[in-house]
Order: sequence, then structure tokens, then C-alpha cells
Amino acid sequence: MSEKPWGGRFESPTDEFVEAFNASTDVDARMYAEDIAGSKAHARMLCEQGILTQEDLNSILRGLDEVLGEIESGEFKFTIALEDVHMNIESQLTKKIGDAGKRLHTARSRNDQVATDTRLYLRSRTDTMIHRIRRLQSVLLTLAGTHADTIMPGFTHLQTAQPVTLGHHLLAYVEMFDRDACRFADARTRMNQCPLGSAALAGTTFNIDRFKTAESLGFDGPTRNSLDSVSDRDFIMELMAAASICAVHLSRFSEELIQWMSAQFNFVDLPDAFCTGSSIMPQKKNPDMPELVRGKSGRIIGGLVAILTTMKGLPLAYNKDMQEDKTAIFDAFDNLEGCLRVFGDMLPGMSVNSEVMHTAASSGFATATDLADALVRAGVPFRDAHEIVGKSVGHCIKAGIELHEMDESACSNIDARLSADMVRLLSVENCVAARNHIGGTAPDQVRKQVAEWNTRLESQHD
Amino acid sequence: MSEKPWGGRFESPTDEFVEAFNASTDVDARMYAEDIAGSKAHARMLCEQGILTQEDLNSILRGLDEVLGEIESGEFKFTIALEDVHMNIESQLTKKIGDAGKRLHTARSRNDQVATDTRLYLRSRTDTMIHRIRRLQSVLLTLAGTHADTIMPGFTHLQTAQPVTLGHHLLAYVEMFDRDACRFADARTRMNQCPLGSAALAGTTFNIDRFKTAESLGFDGPTRNSLDSVSDRDFIMELMAAASICAVHLSRFSEELIQWMSAQFNFVDLPDAFCTGSSIMPQKKNPDMPELVRGKSGRIIGGLVAILTTMKGLPLAYNKDMQEDKTAIFDAFDNLEGCLRVFGDMLPGMSVNSEVMHTAASSGFATATDLADALVRAGVPFRDAHEIVGKSVGHCIKAGIELHEMDESACSNIDARLSADMVRLLSVENCVAARNHIGGTAPDQVRKQVAEWNTRLESQHD
Amino acid sequence: MSEKPWGGRFESPTDEFVEAFNASTDVDARMYAEDIAGSKAHARMLCEQGILTQEDLNSILRGLDEVLGEIESGEFKFTIALEDVHMNIESQLTKKIGDAGKRLHTARSRNDQVATDTRLYLRSRTDTMIHRIRRLQSVLLTLAGTHADTIMPGFTHLQTAQPVTLGHHLLAYVEMFDRDACRFADARTRMNQCPLGSAALAGTTFNIDRFKTAESLGFDGPTRNSLDSVSDRDFIMELMAAASICAVHLSRFSEELIQWMSAQFNFVDLPDAFCTGSSIMPQKKNPDMPELVRGKSGRIIGGLVAILTTMKGLPLAYNKDMQEDKTAIFDAFDNLEGCLRVFGDMLPGMSVNSEVMHTAASSGFATATDLADALVRAGVPFRDAHEIVGKSVGHCIKAGIELHEMDESACSNIDARLSADMVRLLSVENCVAARNHIGGTAPDQVRKQVAEWNTRLESQHD
Amino acid sequence: MSEKPWGGRFESPTDEFVEAFNASTDVDARMYAEDIAGSKAHARMLCEQGILTQEDLNSILRGLDEVLGEIESGEFKFTIALEDVHMNIESQLTKKIGDAGKRLHTARSRNDQVATDTRLYLRSRTDTMIHRIRRLQSVLLTLAGTHADTIMPGFTHLQTAQPVTLGHHLLAYVEMFDRDACRFADARTRMNQCPLGSAALAGTTFNIDRFKTAESLGFDGPTRNSLDSVSDRDFIMELMAAASICAVHLSRFSEELIQWMSAQFNFVDLPDAFCTGSSIMPQKKNPDMPELVRGKSGRIIGGLVAILTTMKGLPLAYNKDMQEDKTAIFDAFDNLEGCLRVFGDMLPGMSVNSEVMHTAASSGFATATDLADALVRAGVPFRDAHEIVGKSVGHCIKAGIELHEMDESACSNIDARLSADMVRLLSVENCVAARNHIGGTAPDQVRKQVAEWNTRLESQHD
Repeated sequence: MSEKPWGGRFESPTDEFVEAFNASTDVDARMYAEDIAGSKAHARMLCEQGILTQEDLNSILRGLDEVLGEIESGEFKFTIALEDVHMNIESQLTKKIGDAGKRLHTARSRNDQVATDTRLYLRSRTDTMIHRIRRLQSVLLTLAGTHADTIMPGFTHLQTAQPVTLGHHLLAYVEMFDRDACRFADARTRMNQCPLGSAALAGTTFNIDRFKTAESLGFDGPTRNSLDSVSDRDFIMELMAAASICAVHLSRFSEELIQWMSAQFNFVDLPDAFCTGSSIMPQKKNPDMPELVRGKSGRIIGGLVAILTTMKGLPLAYNKDMQEDKTAIFDAFDNLEGCLRVFGDMLPGMSVNSEVMHTAASSGFATATDLADALVRAGVPFRDAHEIVGKSVGHCIKAGIELHEMDESACSNIDARLSADMVRLLSVENCVAARNHIGGTAPDQVRKQVAEWNTRLESQHD
Repeated sequence: MSEKPWGGRFESPTDEFVEAFNASTDVDARMYAEDIAGSKAHARMLCEQGILTQEDLNSILRGLDEVLGEIESGEFKFTIALEDVHMNIESQLTKKIGDAGKRLHTARSRNDQVATDTRLYLRSRTDTMIHRIRRLQSVLLTLAGTHADTIMPGFTHLQTAQPVTLGHHLLAYVEMFDRDACRFADARTRMNQCPLGSAALAGTTFNIDRFKTAESLGFDGPTRNSLDSVSDRDFIMELMAAASICAVHLSRFSEELIQWMSAQFNFVDLPDAFCTGSSIMPQKKNPDMPELVRGKSGRIIGGLVAILTTMKGLPLAYNKDMQEDKTAIFDAFDNLEGCLRVFGDMLPGMSVNSEVMHTAASSGFATATDLADALVRAGVPFRDAHEIVGKSVGHCIKAGIELHEMDESACSNIDARLSADMVRLLSVENCVAARNHIGGTAPDQVRKQVAEWNTRLESQHD
Repeated sequence: MSEKPWGGRFESPTDEFVEAFNASTDVDARMYAEDIAGSKAHARMLCEQGILTQEDLNSILRGLDEVLGEIESGEFKFTIALEDVHMNIESQLTKKIGDAGKRLHTARSRNDQVATDTRLYLRSRTDTMIHRIRRLQSVLLTLAGTHADTIMPGFTHLQTAQPVTLGHHLLAYVEMFDRDACRFADARTRMNQCPLGSAALAGTTFNIDRFKTAESLGFDGPTRNSLDSVSDRDFIMELMAAASICAVHLSRFSEELIQWMSAQFNFVDLPDAFCTGSSIMPQKKNPDMPELVRGKSGRIIGGLVAILTTMKGLPLAYNKDMQEDKTAIFDAFDNLEGCLRVFGDMLPGMSVNSEVMHTAASSGFATATDLADALVRAGVPFRDAHEIVGKSVGHCIKAGIELHEMDESACSNIDARLSADMVRLLSVENCVAARNHIGGTAPDQVRKQVAEWNTRLESQHD
Repeated sequence: MSEKPWGGRFESPTDEFVEAFNASTDVDARMYAEDIAGSKAHARMLCEQGILTQEDLNSILRGLDEVLGEIESGEFKFTIALEDVHMNIESQLTKKIGDAGKRLHTARSRNDQVATDTRLYLRSRTDTMIHRIRRLQSVLLTLAGTHADTIMPGFTHLQTAQPVTLGHHLLAYVEMFDRDACRFADARTRMNQCPLGSAALAGTTFNIDRFKTAESLGFDGPTRNSLDSVSDRDFIMELMAAASICAVHLSRFSEELIQWMSAQFNFVDLPDAFCTGSSIMPQKKNPDMPELVRGKSGRIIGGLVAILTTMKGLPLAYNKDMQEDKTAIFDAFDNLEGCLRVFGDMLPGMSVNSEVMHTAASSGFATATDLADALVRAGVPFRDAHEIVGKSVGHCIKAGIELHEMDESACSNIDARLSADMVRLLSVENCVAARNHIGGTAPDQVRKQVAEWNTRLESQHD
């Protein structure tokens, strides 16, 4: 009991199982560097404001550095009896430097301390996440450039729809991941306000300077309301939402890779180093990584639900329920970062079966829309053109031929306005080349987009 | 069958139950105005690019205006046989103007059409949502100004922690709702790219000008990848996430109002017009509105899960699964908007029992932290001060007195450094007044924040 | 105000928007028959207990029948001013029969009334759901019998693993749907307790007989705790969980049908009546139904989250939040029932490309495990056998042959224990036939399971 | 590479990060006892069927016992290079006993092995969970017996509704937890089918006896379809759903305890050993345990969403995504079991402020319904009685009195049918005593329910 920072008014010690169930040390110990950085900034400010002597400050800074060293060298033993990362560190500090250590908690509370630590920690993790996304985009841009002319079937409803270029297809993911990066960046901006100085919930009676601590910790400024500062977990909900949407994107990409690597599609082969085999079927080579990544989207979405449901209906200000926030987001960030890393490492080694893709694009009447467009150019209203081509496809299915193989009589039998000249021009190469406007699948557009994206990504690195 | 826009290659008609199960008309009919606006912009662009004659354009514009009039007057009969809002309108248009109507779908597909309609519709709804949030903030600012000096207990763990001002408490929600509005605004910016011209998935062979349609529909520009344009539902996921977080905020506020209106708290009374009674207990006056709002947070979070789970693992590009997107977000937006409206209307009529609040704040040793702070100012390290006050609280509980009632001997019995002079100054008024820094609960700070917020909100209306 | 059943102590009328926002009539009106049945049972019991005169009872029964008739004929106008189905019906009853109508609500409350109605309504819907599942199982059994000998590749990781029979594959879903039906049945049993007589939350002062009403409404007995009876929504959470798991099964089946119908798999073709085409691509035939069903799994899971989150943290007894329960489950049941119906109607018309399936099963070294098993039978430890076959597969890939095409020298080059005799016997027919134990894929086992299942399903119909 | 059980056809080793990302050892190592038990049963059956020699069997049984000993003594080093618990154990076995170890995997696959292990492990955990629930019920029954006569306000909408007994209130949770236990028991029955022998997905070519292994592992029998056996995770989804509903119940109870322990309610005090204090506010005693338990409901619901979303849309049979199943349910079970344990330990030490509760029940017009009932007994139709009492309450609020304090003239002023005799009898004691039917709140009923429940629970222990 004497170890507890709040033992004063309690008459019986904490139940042993409760102590373990209640402790957050296992989860929050990873924020040790942020906790120490926050304490240093707080102590320096207290000193500048005349609340702490220079001597005490010096002891505190030196002591905290020692504790940091012990943690990083692995000597430090975190104990659940001290509940959390904050008390573990402060307790060790006080063992080292005595009364000065006991003065460190002046004008703050664990409520604003944990809010500060978590924002600092997640800010840094968010930067890494954005970096991982940008790197994956780079990998995709290289692949897209290589495959600007590789023709594959574009699908809707998993049915062959129209030919597209593989480069174009990959660029769709570049767009998705860009929105992901931007969502993370927006969330980062929104959370980059410093709650330190909000104390338990109402601020403090000491003459603190919250702008100073905010600035020294790299925040854009102090938060504006102390009650909100200690009970707000918006930044966690928002980051989890961003993570969930990004995970959904990865799950879609994974689904495609898994389908493409099946014997039936046979569009791509993933490198051995990212696949595993079977303990019973010796011939198997399984796309484990995309499968695992697809599966983890459920886990990350589950984490989002966890935090939203936990926060639902909580009165202000801090409630113990909120301790569950870190479990969810640490797990989500660890997993999403792993997924992004795996994809970034795996894709450069993917081999593409361009011929299989081309053959697939060339069958299944993928050029039908272009025939309709040709009819429209000849003055047929689009809806009528659509119906004429529908009949042509019906004819070809029965005759076992492709559209461009229809002869003049077949054409005129279907509609006088349809001619063999029109169908002769139908090739997947013509199809993709013709979609030559911004956003279109034409190789020229793909190359243009790759170039623009490369410029954009480079400018972000400056 | 002949009615279907795609009947050409089909040999048997759609199963009757399937037709109803498959149709989205019930859900998407509400986007009729956006569908018509999109069609007009598309037609004008086609004409300017020489793909449509001026004559056809004139017919189309006139015809669409007529259809719009019929819908708004209630004459128009939507039919599920025509599947969705797009085909219902186009079919009626063609009935009116013949071949010109059949030309309207040139260079587009329902895939880019529905993506465009949905963005337009949700853009407008998002603007309304932001407006509703800003209005609720205004209401809160007025209340906060009125109650800048009203003292209430601040809670953590629903235990009396420290006195705060009601104005300060309400300002915490102003902060939360501000982040909500900003999240909606960020999502709006991100979705304000025009997918029109992406056609089915790959772009079109016609010489379209996507910048033109984008501009005329108020978008910031065209989207950059056609595959992404028709398979992206990020904007829905992101808006739903923003809605869910906002709903969580409302659920917390609701929880507080429900507790405050209980006989046990008796802090506030909600206006009769926002409460209901009981069919069996004649004395009841129930806070139905906060309860319903709290309950609806589950519904809105459920909608977020629905869209995330539906999108999970879908290959590119459009899949029919995505039809479920609108059900979720329309329901969420309708409900969230209703919740915001109800709160904005209800709060001005709430009566506050300031005396009850003051009494509650004055008991429960809410001033204990301030006594610790006084000891710190007298040179006692914070951790020791904390322990001394802990013992003082223990003494008072046994003696049945409050801290400020301790006499000199009681004080010195506990610790030599504790004095009756220190405890004499402990009043809730002093407590709140002393927290006079940015974010603190002092009445001066509350008034300052209210003023700043009013300026900020006004500047947003310009 | 005078219309409200609780107006007595209120001084100002309900806000107009609140009235609409608060009303549940739109949602709960569909329970009119259960509401009337419950009222009749309640009135009869009141009369038998001497609380209501025979004359009043007669009026009430007659009046309720008239109201029922009006509702079913469409004459009845539900109004949101009367909040819900209960007050709409009671109000109309009182208009018809005067004071007797005002006596009906004796010894009950809307809290136990809505709990009773909802259980009755969902009990009936659950029976229908189970019936739909059983019907789908029947359809699958017929298909499984037809395809007991149809060989297709069995997949793990979407990679060809071992040959299986299509009948066996379909039987896997028969098992899943059986668990679904049993979960619904368990939930039905658990909810079939009558809450009527719990009144507002504490029971009633009248001498009621709860066993009588329970029995006359077909419940297994009365609930045992009045507080629980009016605040319990377990049955909704449990039914939603059962619905969600069933929806997950349907989503998996849907995924397979969509893949199988792709040009790349080409395993099956779904009937035209269950597919739609494209407004732009005349050749398309899209598997809309499986896609829509797959998508709706998200919606149903979202509904489960909604109810769980709404109920989280609610104190006893009834809270208005709980009004949201019906929206979620009605939507889920409507959709799930639709999905089951569509699958039951669609599958009999599915055509199977047995040859394509057979060819797919015959390539990709699907028989490799059987070669390892043969080596084991010859005394090679399984792990060594696995490695030998792994090398054989490697050899065949390079040589461009299948395993059964390896000659003696190829075999002995890899391992002395491998022989051409062993590989010669590798055929997909032998593979499936050899797995002839309970649960195995052998045609004989499939036929046996089909027979057993048919017997089981028949016995359930008695 | 040589260590991998499937290395044969692979040419490059697994990427290092992928190896760690892919491995499940950290999560599944806890199933070591079940893995070994399953292997023993499998080996014994193989021997009885003549597939394994008695000598090999003896080596395997001895070797597995040694491995078990090493794991339990902490000597055993699990390595992620061996992917999972299965290969870690088999590899060590083979190191010990050579070729016999390599024969153990005959006629099985990791797919049926992990399905078997997980069912065995969760079966045992489910039994513990049911036991924990039954123990908590016992604790509640003791408390309910003690407080059969303790009167408190019953709430609806958190407004005082009618007096109830605390015993009755606690019995509501006994009912909820009973349904929880039954749901777990139903899930246990449904999952107690043995998948062993399903091998990779199709069964095996060896002459195995699946009934034998099923029986020796305590299953009710073998599963009936091998594809279903290895791709089914219903039991996890169902157990998670049961856990989520139970967590919702605990969250509701938690909410009540937190409210009851607030200064405003002051109904109960939780034991020091289950509360913590504040690092800044020395007077605080926080109900940490109910708060944490309430918060964990979000985490458990999140886990349910994770598994549902992960399984959504997966084709048969095994996919790597499914590896995520264990993380979710292990976390949920660990946490739920902890919550149940904490509640069972904490509640016996809770002190109840009966006087405060009684006073609260006596104010707020909680007896109003009984006055209406008295009027009904005097022949007034219920709806009229309701309105008369509503007016009486209005009168009392203005007069600052309670209902039973109304005198004759006050009564007759409101309605001729209302009399001072009626109001005189209104006491909370009469109120609760009068609700004396099954499910009612009368002390006699509470005692009866406690007795019946104790009998029921005892019979389950036999």
C-alpha cells in the first residue's frame, strides 16, 4: 500500500488479482521515452515559472536520464504494483534523487500526463505509418510504370468488363493509399495539441505556462479546455478509423492477389519468400501474406468498434474505462504497419504473366463497349447501339467467335447500321489506347500519372 | 425485359422477387435532383465537345426539367422494374423526347453516374451537418456564457473530483463538436473530386472534357483514376467514421443530461416539450431525447461497421455489394442530423439548479487538491503534500466535517506543516478562480473562451 | 396533449420535430397482430381473475377484432402523435367502445406490452427463418445427390489442394446451415418466456395469473423477474448473432459462386433470372444475387453491433435507447430471409460445367498427397514422403508434366523408394474414392450423407 | 528452410520479417496440452488400425510425454521459425525419437489438427467460464437473500418509477447470467464434434477410425464433412457472441454500481481492495473495477466484429486469414473471465446504505401507480385513473408534499373519486408487498426465487 501514489485515505490493500487486472504497465510501458520527455518539459517549465528550483530541476533531469538509460539497457524492472509507466518511472526517480522527485508531479496529474504521452507516442507512430504508405506508393508507381502497356481484363462483378492496363489498375491503389496518408495527416494535425497542464480535469492553481511545454514537445499549442483534454479520445477513434479504411484497401488488394495467383487466373506469381507450403500437400505454394493481411482487416475494424463502444455513453471527465484505449490502437498500428511493410517488400518480387492477362482480356467480349461507341459515332443513339451490340454478343456466343470475327452478313443481319469495318477495329490495344483522357486507362495516361505522382511524392520528402 | 437497359443478351426475364430485392430505387430516389444536375452537366459537356447536337441538348435539358418538376410535384412514379433512380429518370426522359434521351448515356455508365450523384448528395448533406454542429455550438456558447460562474462538481470516475464551472463543462463539448465539424469538412474536401467520365471502369473512347463537368458541378476537379473512381467508397466510410465519433460525443452528453436530471443529481430540468411521460406511472417525466440520442449512437456505429465489412475484400472495380452503401449512410445522416437538431432546440430551454450544483461541489472534499497545492507552496514536496491531505480527508470523514472546518490542533496532529490558515481559504469559489490559465476552469477563462469561440464561429459564416 | 397517454403532469406540448423523432410507429406498426393477440389474452385473464367484467371483456374482444380488420384492410391510419403501435390501437379501441377500452391497460404497462409483442413477432419470424434454412438445405441436398460423382478441385488458400466432389463441397454448407437453424432454435427456446404481467418494472398490485397469459400466447411459461423482463433484450442480441453467423455463411457461398462464375473459373453459370446486365457493356451477365447477398452480410453484422452498443452500459430497467432495438432486427431479418429465399430459388437453376471442374482438378498436382500416402504405405515416414513428393512436384513443373506421367528413371532419380507403379495410380477418381470414411469426400460417403440428411430433415417436418 | 515442414518445392527461404509476421506461435503455444493430447489419441488410433506399429506408438507416447514435461517445466523453447505450436512440438518429438516422430503426421494435416486443438482448448475454457458465471450467481443469490426486504427506488429512464427491493433488482442479474451460462452451454454442445481425420480438407486415404479419436478426446462424435471441419469457425463466432452479450450484462451492472457509488446516489460503497485512489486528488476513491469491466465490454464486442469480418467472404476451405481467430477469442475469454472473477470477489464486500435507498424510494411519487390501481379497484377506468393521479402529482409538486400527505379536500378538488383513504395507504412497503406474483418485487417472491435458484444451481453441480 505504501507504494501506491494515492494510498493516504485507504484502509485495506488492493486485492491481488485486481492489482494485475487493473494495471496498464504491460501495455503502456512502451511509451517510456515519451513519458520521460514529457516530464522533462514539465519540469523545465516549472523551473522557469519559479515553481521548482534550478537545483531540483537539475536533479530531475539527471535522474530521468538515468532512468531512461536503465530502461533502454533492459535493467529496469517494471512492476504492476506501481500500476502504470508513469508511477514506475517517478518511483524510480524518487529512489534516486529523493524529494526533488516528489516535486515533479506538482501541477499535473496522471490524467493529463497519459493524454500527453499517448499523443506524443501516436504522433510518432503516425509519421511512421505515413512513411510506410508513401513507400508502398513508390513501389506501386515503379510497377505501374513497368506495366503501363500490359493489358489485362478490367472486371466489374468479377466479370470481364473492358480491357485495362495493369499500370492503371495499380494506380487505383496509389489513389487509395494517398487518401489514407492524407487521413492520417489530418488526424495528426488535429491531435497535435498539448493537454499538459490540464491536471486532473480543471487545470491547476500554479502559475504554469502551457504554451511553453506545448512548444518544447513539438505541439502546435496547448488544448483549450482542460475537461476535454483529459476525457477526449477522439484522436484514437480517428486514427483507428483511418487505419480501418486503409486496412480495407489492403484487404481488397489482397483479395485480388489471391485470385490472380490461383491456377484459374494465373495472372501473377508471388515470390517464394512471401509464401508458405503445406504440411500435407507437397505441391502447395500459398499466398499467405495477402491472406493474412486480408484477415487482419477484421482485427483492425474490431479495434475501431472496441474504442467507439468503450467511449459510448461515458460522462466527463476521465473514467477508468478509457484505459482500454491503448490496447486497441497499439495492436492496430502494429498490425497495419506490418501489413504495409510486407506489401512494400513483396510487390517488387511479384512476377506478372502478361500473356495470360492479354489472352484473358481478349476474350469475353471485353471490347463490346467500343463497338457500341463506334455505332454512336455513326449516329446511332447510345441505347440503341447498346442493344445492337447485345444482340451481336448473343450471336457470337452461339457461333463461338469473338466480335471482331463477325463478317459483313452477320453484321447486317443484326442491324443495318452495323458493319464489318466497325468490328475489324476492335482490339484490346485500341480499346485501352482510346481511353486517353485524365483518369483513363490509356498507356499514355498511365505514364503521365506515374510521372506526376513521382513528382508529388518527391516534393513531400523535402 | 424490354424495359431493362441491358436486356440484349438475356433470354429469360428477371425473377420477380429478385427484381424487388435487387432494386435500389427505394433508397436512391432521394438523389433525383443530383442525378438530374449530373445529367445536365454531362449533356452540356457532350454538346460543347461536339458529341451531342445543340438540338439534342436542348431537348434533354427541357426534358430533364420536366421530369424534375414531375418528381417534385409528386406526379412521378418510381418503379422498381427500372432498378434505380438513374434508369427511372432516363426512361421517362426518353418517353418525352425520344432518341435524344437515348443519347444521354453516351460516354458514361451507371457506375460513374451513381458515384457522382452520391458525392453530390452527401456533399450537400455534409454542409447541412456542419451547419447543425455550428448551431449547436452557438447554443452551447450562449449557455456557457450564462453559466461562467455557476459552480458544479467536476467528476472523474463519477466521483467528485474538483469544482468546475458549468460554463467550462459545456465548453468541453464545444471543443468536441469543433473537431467533429472539422472532420466532416476534411472528408468533404477529400470527396469533392468528380468521378464523372470514368464510365464503367476504364474511361471512355469519346473526346470528353472531365474538367468541364467537374467545374460545372462544383467539384474541385476530376478524379485521377477511373478504376478507383467507380470502386471507391472511402468518402462513405470516412463520413460514417466522422458521424460515429460525433454520435459518441452526443452519447456522452446525453448520459450526463440523463444523470443530471435524475432525482439523485437534480442538477437540471429539461423542457416538457422534449420529454415524455409514462402510460402507467403518472408522475414520470422522462428524458426521452437524450436517451434516444444515446441509443442512436449504437445505430450509427453499426452503420459504420456495415460499410467497412461490406467493402472488405472486394476486388476492383464495381461490385453489386456496394449498392448497400447508401442505406447505411442515409440512415446515419438522417439520424445524426436529427440528434443535433434536437439538442440544439432542447438545450436553450434547460433549467439549471445552480444551488444544488453548488452544494454538491462544496461537499465531498472537492477542494483537497488545493490544500495539497497550498502545502507545496509552503515547501512540501507534492507527493508528501498529497499524503498529508489524504490523512486529513480520512480525519474529516471520521469527524463528519469538511476540510475547511479543521481547527489548528486537528491540523497539527496530522502534520506540523499543515495549518488552519491553509484550510480556511478552501472554498469552491477560490478553487475555480485559481485555475486561471488557458484551458482552466476559472470564470475569466470561460468568458475569454466564449468570446474567442464566438469570433471564430462568426468568421466561418462569412 | 390530451391524446398522449401520459399528459397529466405536463404543462407544454411535445415539440413537433421531437414527436416525429421519438415515435416508433413506423417501425413497430408491423407488430399489430401480436399487439392485438396480447391484448386479448391479457383481457381474458383479467376477466377470469375478476378484474374485468365479462361485459367489458366482450366489448374489448369485439373492438379489437374490428381494429384488426381495419388494419388488415388498410383503412386504419397510424399516427405518430400516438407514438407507437400500442397507443394507436388502444386509442382506436376506446373510440369504439368507450370506458371498457380505458380499462384494458389495467395491470400492464407499455414496457411489458412491447416486450411481449416483440417476442411474439420474432418467434414467428424465427420459425419462418428456420423454415427458409431447411428449404435451402433441401435444395442443396438435391444438388449434392446429383453431383456426388462430379469432381472439382478442392481449394485451400484458393490454391488447388486435393480433388473433392462437388456434392461433398455442397454438403459443407448443409452442415453450416444446420448449425444456423439450431442456433435460431436455441434462441427461440430461450426467448419463449412471457414477460406480460411485469408491468412497468416491478409487477402489479392486481391479482393476475401470469401462467394463464403465458400459456394462451403459446409461451413456455412466465418470466421470473419483472425488472429483467422489461429491460432484457438478450433475445434480440442472440437472434442478431445467429443472423450474423448465417449471413457470414451466405457470404462465403456467395464468394465462391462469384468466383466460379468468372471467365477464369467458368465452373458454373447462374440462371438469367438471377443476374443482371450492364447499362454500358452489352456483353455482361453479372452475378448480382450472390454479390448482393455477400454485401448484406456487412449490413447484418452492423445491426448486431448496433444493438450490442446500444445496450452497453444501460442501467435497469427500461430506457428509451432500447426503442432502437426493433429497427436493427427487423432490417436484419427482412434481409436475411430475402437472402435465403433467393439462394433457395436460384440454386436449382445453376448449371455446372463438370468438364471444366474435372480438368481443373486434374492439373496442379492435386494428387500429390496421395503419392505421399502411397510412399507411407511402402514404409516411408510421412515427413520423408512429403519431401520426396515435394521434389517430384518440382521436377514435374520443370518438365512440364503431371505426376502420373513420371517414368521409372525420373522416379528413381528423385528417391529410390519412389516408383512408376505408384504414380501410375494417381487419378482424381482414385483420390476421391479413397477418402471413404465418415466426413470424407468419396462419392459413396456423399450419397450416404445425403440420405441421412434427407431422413433428418423429414423427421423435423413432422 | 530445411526446418520448414513444407520446404520441398521452395527455392528461396522465407523473408525474415514475414516469418515473424506469419508465425502464430506466440498465440497458439498456450494450446500445447491439447495439441499433445490430440497427437496421442491420433497415434493410438493409427496403431489400432494397423497404420502405425506398436513400437512406433510407444516411442511417440513416451516422446510426447517428455515434450509435455519440458514445456511445463519451462525448459522448452518455442521458435517462430517453426511457425506454430504443432510444428514446434512435432519437431522436438522427432529430435527425440527419430523416424517414429515423422510418422505421427500420417493421415492428418495441420488444418484438422488446429481445429481439434482449438475446440479442445475452448471447450475447457468454456467450462471454466460457465463455472465463473455460476459462482457469480451464487454470490448474487446470497446478497439477494440478505436484501429481500431492502427497499430502493426502481428506475426507468433513470427516473424514480416504483419502489423495488434490492433483492429483486439483484435477481434480475441472476436471470441474465443464467441465459449467458446457457448460451455458453449450447455453444459447447454444438462445437463438441471432432474434426480430426478431416486432414487437409477432404479426408484421408488411410483406413482411420474417426469415432475412436472422437471418443477418446471426449467429443460427442466426429464431424460429418471434412471441408466444413477445417473451414468452420462457427464455434468461435458463437462463443464470442455469447461472451459479448455477457459483457453487455456486466457493463449494465457496472454502470449501476458506478452510479450507486457516486456522492449523489450514495446507495453503496465498494470495498477498498477493489478501488483505487488518485495521484492528485487525495480524497478520491474510485470504482475502478466496475469501470474497467464496463470498458472491456467494448473490447469484447470488438473481438466479435473482428472474427465476423475476418470470416466474411472467405471461400472454402482453410485460408490463412483464419489464423486471426485465436487472437480475438483468447483475448475475449481472458478478459471476460477476469471480469466475472472480479465481480464475484468484489460483491460480497459491498456495503449497502439501506436508509439512503429507502428515503430515495419514498420520494419522487414512486407510489403513484398504486394510487391509480386503487382508483381502478374503485371502478375508475385505468386511463382515467392515470390522469387523476397525474393531476395529483402536479398538485403535490406545487404544494411541496408527497401523495400520501394529500388531505380530503385536496383529493376531492382533483376528482370526486379520489379520497384521503386511498392516499393514506401509500407506502413503499405496501407497494412492494403488493406485487406478490411470480416475477414481482415482493419480499416473499424474492425469497421464493432465491430458494428456487439455489436448488437449481445445486442440482447443476452434481
